[in-house]
Amino acid sequence: MHYRTEHDTMGEINVPSDKFWGAQTERSRNNFKIGPEGSMPSEIIEAFAILKKAAAFANADLGVLPSEKRDLIAQVCDEIREGKLNGNFPLVIWQTGSGTQSNMNVNEVIANKAHVNSGGILGEKSVIHPNDDVNKSQSSNDTFPTAMHIAAYKKVVEHTIPAVEKLRNTLEQKSKQFQNIVKIGRTHLMDATPLTLGQEFSGYVAQLDFSLKAIKNTLSHLSELALGGTAVGTGLNTPKGYDVKVAEYISEFAGLPFITAENKFEALAAHDAIVESHGALKQLAVSLYKIAQDIRFLASGPRSGIGEIFIPENEPGSSIMPGKVNPTQSEALTMVCAQVLGNDTTISFSGTQGNFELNVFKPVMIYNFLQSATLLADACISFNDHCAVGIEANEPRIQELVEKSLMLVTALNPHIGYENAATIAKAAHKNGTTLREEAINLGLLTAEQFDEWVKPEKMI
Amino acid sequence: MHYRTEHDTMGEINVPSDKFWGAQTERSRNNFKIGPEGSMPSEIIEAFAILKKAAAFANADLGVLPSEKRDLIAQVCDEIREGKLNGNFPLVIWQTGSGTQSNMNVNEVIANKAHVNSGGILGEKSVIHPNDDVNKSQSSNDTFPTAMHIAAYKKVVEHTIPAVEKLRNTLEQKSKQFQNIVKIGRTHLMDATPLTLGQEFSGYVAQLDFSLKAIKNTLSHLSELALGGTAVGTGLNTPKGYDVKVAEYISEFAGLPFITAENKFEALAAHDAIVESHGALKQLAVSLYKIAQDIRFLASGPRSGIGEIFIPENEPGSSIMPGKVNPTQSEALTMVCAQVLGNDTTISFSGTQGNFELNVFKPVMIYNFLQSATLLADACISFNDHCAVGIEANEPRIQELVEKSLMLVTALNPHIGYENAATIAKAAHKNGTTLREEAINLGLLTAEQFDEWVKPEKMI
Amino acid sequence: MHYRTEHDTMGEINVPSDKFWGAQTERSRNNFKIGPEGSMPSEIIEAFAILKKAAAFANADLGVLPSEKRDLIAQVCDEIREGKLNGNFPLVIWQTGSGTQSNMNVNEVIANKAHVNSGGILGEKSVIHPNDDVNKSQSSNDTFPTAMHIAAYKKVVEHTIPAVEKLRNTLEQKSKQFQNIVKIGRTHLMDATPLTLGQEFSGYVAQLDFSLKAIKNTLSHLSELALGGTAVGTGLNTPKGYDVKVAEYISEFAGLPFITAENKFEALAAHDAIVESHGALKQLAVSLYKIAQDIRFLASGPRSGIGEIFIPENEPGSSIMPGKVNPTQSEALTMVCAQVLGNDTTISFSGTQGNFELNVFKPVMIYNFLQSATLLADACISFNDHCAVGIEANEPRIQELVEKSLMLVTALNPHIGYENAATIAKAAHKNGTTLREEAINLGLLTAEQFDEWVKPEKMI
Amino acid sequence: MHYRTEHDTMGEINVPSDKFWGAQTERSRNNFKIGPEGSMPSEIIEAFAILKKAAAFANADLGVLPSEKRDLIAQVCDEIREGKLNGNFPLVIWQTGSGTQSNMNVNEVIANKAHVNSGGILGEKSVIHPNDDVNKSQSSNDTFPTAMHIAAYKKVVEHTIPAVEKLRNTLEQKSKQFQNIVKIGRTHLMDATPLTLGQEFSGYVAQLDFSLKAIKNTLSHLSELALGGTAVGTGLNTPKGYDVKVAEYISEFAGLPFITAENKFEALAAHDAIVESHGALKQLAVSLYKIAQDIRFLASGPRSGIGEIFIPENEPGSSIMPGKVNPTQSEALTMVCAQVLGNDTTISFSGTQGNFELNVFKPVMIYNFLQSATLLADACISFNDHCAVGIEANEPRIQELVEKSLMLVTALNPHIGYENAATIAKAAHKNGTTLREEAINLGLLTAEQFDEWVKPEKMI
Repeated sequence: MHYRTEHDTMGEINVPSDKFWGAQTERSRNNFKIGPEGSMPSEIIEAFAILKKAAAFANADLGVLPSEKRDLIAQVCDEIREGKLNGNFPLVIWQTGSGTQSNMNVNEVIANKAHVNSGGILGEKSVIHPNDDVNKSQSSNDTFPTAMHIAAYKKVVEHTIPAVEKLRNTLEQKSKQFQNIVKIGRTHLMDATPLTLGQEFSGYVAQLDFSLKAIKNTLSHLSELALGGTAVGTGLNTPKGYDVKVAEYISEFAGLPFITAENKFEALAAHDAIVESHGALKQLAVSLYKIAQDIRFLASGPRSGIGEIFIPENEPGSSIMPGKVNPTQSEALTMVCAQVLGNDTTISFSGTQGNFELNVFKPVMIYNFLQSATLLADACISFNDHCAVGIEANEPRIQELVEKSLMLVTALNPHIGYENAATIAKAAHKNGTTLREEAINLGLLTAEQFDEWVKPEKMI
Repeated sequence: MHYRTEHDTMGEINVPSDKFWGAQTERSRNNFKIGPEGSMPSEIIEAFAILKKAAAFANADLGVLPSEKRDLIAQVCDEIREGKLNGNFPLVIWQTGSGTQSNMNVNEVIANKAHVNSGGILGEKSVIHPNDDVNKSQSSNDTFPTAMHIAAYKKVVEHTIPAVEKLRNTLEQKSKQFQNIVKIGRTHLMDATPLTLGQEFSGYVAQLDFSLKAIKNTLSHLSELALGGTAVGTGLNTPKGYDVKVAEYISEFAGLPFITAENKFEALAAHDAIVESHGALKQLAVSLYKIAQDIRFLASGPRSGIGEIFIPENEPGSSIMPGKVNPTQSEALTMVCAQVLGNDTTISFSGTQGNFELNVFKPVMIYNFLQSATLLADACISFNDHCAVGIEANEPRIQELVEKSLMLVTALNPHIGYENAATIAKAAHKNGTTLREEAINLGLLTAEQFDEWVKPEKMI
Repeated sequence: MHYRTEHDTMGEINVPSDKFWGAQTERSRNNFKIGPEGSMPSEIIEAFAILKKAAAFANADLGVLPSEKRDLIAQVCDEIREGKLNGNFPLVIWQTGSGTQSNMNVNEVIANKAHVNSGGILGEKSVIHPNDDVNKSQSSNDTFPTAMHIAAYKKVVEHTIPAVEKLRNTLEQKSKQFQNIVKIGRTHLMDATPLTLGQEFSGYVAQLDFSLKAIKNTLSHLSELALGGTAVGTGLNTPKGYDVKVAEYISEFAGLPFITAENKFEALAAHDAIVESHGALKQLAVSLYKIAQDIRFLASGPRSGIGEIFIPENEPGSSIMPGKVNPTQSEALTMVCAQVLGNDTTISFSGTQGNFELNVFKPVMIYNFLQSATLLADACISFNDHCAVGIEANEPRIQELVEKSLMLVTALNPHIGYENAATIAKAAHKNGTTLREEAINLGLLTAEQFDEWVKPEKMI
Repeated sequence: MHYRTEHDTMGEINVPSDKFWGAQTERSRNNFKIGPEGSMPSEIIEAFAILKKAAAFANADLGVLPSEKRDLIAQVCDEIREGKLNGNFPLVIWQTGSGTQSNMNVNEVIANKAHVNSGGILGEKSVIHPNDDVNKSQSSNDTFPTAMHIAAYKKVVEHTIPAVEKLRNTLEQKSKQFQNIVKIGRTHLMDATPLTLGQEFSGYVAQLDFSLKAIKNTLSHLSELALGGTAVGTGLNTPKGYDVKVAEYISEFAGLPFITAENKFEALAAHDAIVESHGALKQLAVSLYKIAQDIRFLASGPRSGIGEIFIPENEPGSSIMPGKVNPTQSEALTMVCAQVLGNDTTISFSGTQGNFELNVFKPVMIYNFLQSATLLADACISFNDHCAVGIEANEPRIQELVEKSLMLVTALNPHIGYENAATIAKAAHKNGTTLREEAINLGLLTAEQFDEWVKPEKMI
């Protein structure tokens, strides 16, 4: 491999000659060989491109950056967003906890590429300085959390929420489709009084509606940006009005309603917005788990399970058992939920560990957040497209089960009291008979009364 | 001990003769000897007293319960709320997951005590039936989650939020008190640019404001009550209009704005409202941890730590080291936060495990919720009263540290560039000198320029 | 209430006149009103009684404590173990993180009671000094972790392990009882190839055997005692040989094989032994969850579930549905497991948070540990006695399900290949027929071949 | 892109013509677009290559597979291990929970490549059948957990343990290097009695020794392999003696001591071995957190922190503050620990969720396990090489702090009692004087006595 020499305040270092990064990126590559290279999420790099462009515009507007430099910087930022500089962001999650080196990675790539874009040769001192120009009016301490909020907000709003809404709408459509199918209820896994299959599904819809509302409740915290706080939250080395202006530019470039954080000290030293929004994602995972678990149990069988619904058969289920079909979409979704629960532990733990003016668990927090938001989005789409849309009721089976249920006896409580009703149910259970037979045998009511009072379709 | 005989649908059983509970409570006592007796939270018993009275009123209004029975039931409910029947609720958390036996415990105590109140003798068949009267239009499956929401909402609104607000207000007052004290900032635990001690504390205030907002965002979900859903959510065996009316009575008796849940299936089968509100309590724990941790580090010393603030000396700190004083309130508070993080794991796990029409992790969920809400409330008050209110700045120490800081060099960036500034800082660090000396030695600026540009009080 | 005056190095304070505690206990009572009074586990108080007596003996042997003082101290320690001084330990978990105040609580009670025992009057200066005598050669920093290990080890060895073994033995007996009952297997909740019910239960036995082994693997770490390290691990103010000797006395008085910790610095600053042993308890919870969950699903029904086993009917299952019986012991046990998983989060978090020479999350760690160990023990006994011992196979149901299974087709793979076998299974599934019919229809084998090759009892 | 047609029991499907995978892999690719493609860990693919070769050998030995087929299969397995077939394993973690499709991916690639290796053309019916030959005597249900154990065991033994040992040895070397440097102890973050810096580091060594022992304790469970259990643990369709023989071949090919699991039902239905070993990795994370946290606090400063040690300066620490150096290796390591704690939540949760004969959270469990084991290994190496080896004591600073400490007063307890000693310490603290001055002023001892009794170097 060919190398060129780059330098920073610590001295010179060799850098691969075809890469735009500089000395600090290279030091970090060498010093943090932890996990696979390039694991810093691409959403963070994209968010940096948005904020670096916004900073250049705000700096220029406020008279601290020439418009030519602004344009050179902005041009590279656009190239980054378009993916043209992929391969130039080799750093890992497990670096300094402020993400300083990823900030510098972006600064260096912008400075070096801008130099090339303006006709220079890579390796020369750039017309743009990574610290003095690209990072002007900024610190890693305010840029990285800003990139976290941009990336998290974008992901949740553009991917997670629409995916959940898609699944929610399918389940609502199923709820309507199944609204007249009376089935046995189950509490404690045991036979209970009836409800309709549509009612059962309406509970799933309600869960997702609450989850969506909970996620949306957290967005205003996430929309607040640290940028303008610089090193410790005081805004040292920023021109007046910069924080508001840069947030406006970010909103414009991202197409999302960001504002400057009211308190920059909190925005650097704590990441409670990430904790809060991920808490809502965790709630979503809790809801989805219940739904996916129910669906696989309802579809269990084909002959020795519950078997009240059919789910699509998407692939051979077994490498040894021919003809087996499994609830694989439920399995993928519940595994994603298990992951999100663990990610919440990591994020909460990390959220507690800020000290003084800075929380230095930034990369691990945003990595876990973006993983959760992405997996939930993808898994909802997958579960929707390959399972939920194809759910059908197994009506003969549902009918069979409801008819032989003993818990229809509950309808008799208002007529003969709880204790008499229990006597009937116990007799039928013991003798393997029907409620109707035992009710009449025990002389507690007439056949006509039974038929009038015990109607599953009236019990829903 | 003396016993009397009680019976239920499973037969007869001996019950301590001085207790008002009945057969089902006694069975549960014997079958679930797990952990200390009586661990079911008293807040749940109180919530049951509210809802049983409300149900009696709603039933009477709707014509399914005579007003005499209503009044007998209501009278005992009032006695329970007043604590007059303490000692009659011996059941544990670790019982059936629907809390059925605690519902029956309340039903039985109300029925038996009502009989005594109406002139009967304990042990006779009561004028009030625990199932047919006290539990009328109810199931454990909708009463227990209703009690969960009443207890959780009350605890959060009446204890947790006011306690957090009290601490928040103290910290805000300290923030104002310290607004002109310029101190060294610390990022990565390392010396950074200055800020005021008041700004540092303003970050804590902002954290608590966000936590309070997050908690309040969850209350609407928690205000929805399952009551009226009965066994599986369909409302079987309830009179028309019952669910709305009973929620109105609960609101009236509790003095809090409860409403009937829009979807009763969700309200029985999932406890996402508990997951959601506890998620916000967990966020609060994350915030409090950071604050308490900062304060104990800032107070560390007295001679070999940071020592920028003084905290009250409340007790001898050591059984062996004479004269030692420790940040014990921070320690108690951070331990509480650690507990809340674990409780969140338990609650989230439990939230995923609903099946079909019922989640049967109800007692463990509400136990953990109430523990978190109570401990956070108590610990905030304790931390406030015995620590926060007495925090004072150690101004000489703060002054000493800010003066010898090397990070004031950051103020020179706009004048001489990042790299020259770094050269000055590194020289001063290496030589144990001041920035001013090295700046002049290196010929990068004049003494006058240095004095004009490097002013900590201008850097905040 | 009547009070007497006590003093410590901070001055005088009123103490309830009928209590043996002193000034420092009283300060802590007033300063830490967090959660219910007296929540510090009684097992810790008992462990302190053991170690204080052991310290008195070691100090006397080594010539730094007169034998009269030793005997006075030892007498009170015995009284504490016998429960005679219950009510004198009012402190809470949520105090200083070193547990200093509970150490002083014990020191004060011993000093004051010893004074009374020797004929003095409570409130006089005691013949025994809480620090100079009772706490001689000790610090809270080494006594509290020693008490943690004593309490944890005792609980695990004397309660948890025997309880798990009891359940394990019951399940093994059931495994043998069911060894010839061929049933349908289920993978992905879907019908799979057969096994015996005994084999299924043998998996549960194996899980518990692994858990027991894992727990026992951790005991050696837990057997190491910090005592002798005093304030920071150096053993300041202890006579030579003290640490070994005091551990010997503790072993003798506790009847368990404790030894002195090889490295006292680790023993104060970290609580990895607690983390390690609780990790094994958490593994046990994972195992128990799977077992209890399986059992409740296998028992589900009675008519619309799986219904392959019967579990004991212990109590009426519903306040509204007459005759309903629920798997309540499984529910209690799984709730306990959920609690243990959360406790593990709390313990792990707390374990990370030691700083320098001391971890100050001691009380919260041991509280969670003891809760887990106790609940697991109690729940295993309860599940064993009220559920496992009474499990019976529903043989007609098992037989019915195995006969109509489609996955018996797997036995044909070696004869006709996976793809042909799949064709048969799919045809039978689609047509609602038997494998035998379709195999013959499709001409893939003869009736005789089918009967020879497909024998559930040969497939196990 | 060019495609060829492949088929399975569900029919035909297009597959990229240059890939060796078949129909089932392609179905899974299309059905599970969740997270980045190819996320199934490469360690699992490698483990499959080992086990498929072992199975072929065992099958051939036992007469159920011709030796030509064995050799064809083995050849491709070797190619997979050598990385020659990278790019042919596109499936994700979030697929069916049994990992069936990754098992089939390997089966299909082996069958197709073997056909090509034997002179055939890709797309023709292979001479080797993916199910009947490659998967002979196997099921996904026993191969995937076997691959999990192989991959986990290998990773822990070959990477994690050696990395931890490397760091442990460096810390031991530092402990010896610092054995005579007397420093102030800190408990509750507050000044305490002295110890040596070497003693402090010896605690870190002890922590890692306990962690290593804990990890090794879990290996025997992890060494047990499920292979031979096939679909539900009964070993259906395996030749006699197969399970023992295939484990021997795996041991030989992997170079590690694997054995066949004693109970195959446990090995399929539960993954407690993964829970157990990851519990030990979590304990390691707890230990490492404490160590890394201590080191960054001890190195804090350079002028306003503790500053007792120097750590290497590896990179510029700030994009805005010139000359700043941060404890970045501690930050990376503590972030890794936070991740491992969350992964433990995911693994424990997943471990509870087995049902009947199969746990279907296999992929998420092994993904989290391997991530933890890898990150811990890499981070230990990184922390060792870039931080621990370069730690040096700041002796003047250490000396300065120890000299002005007030806690040296503890040495006076045995001479003048705890209360007198406290009086001295409090006076010195209040007056900003030395202990010696106050001791003499207060007339509690002479200067000579003070000098004789209070010697930091005697207190360690």
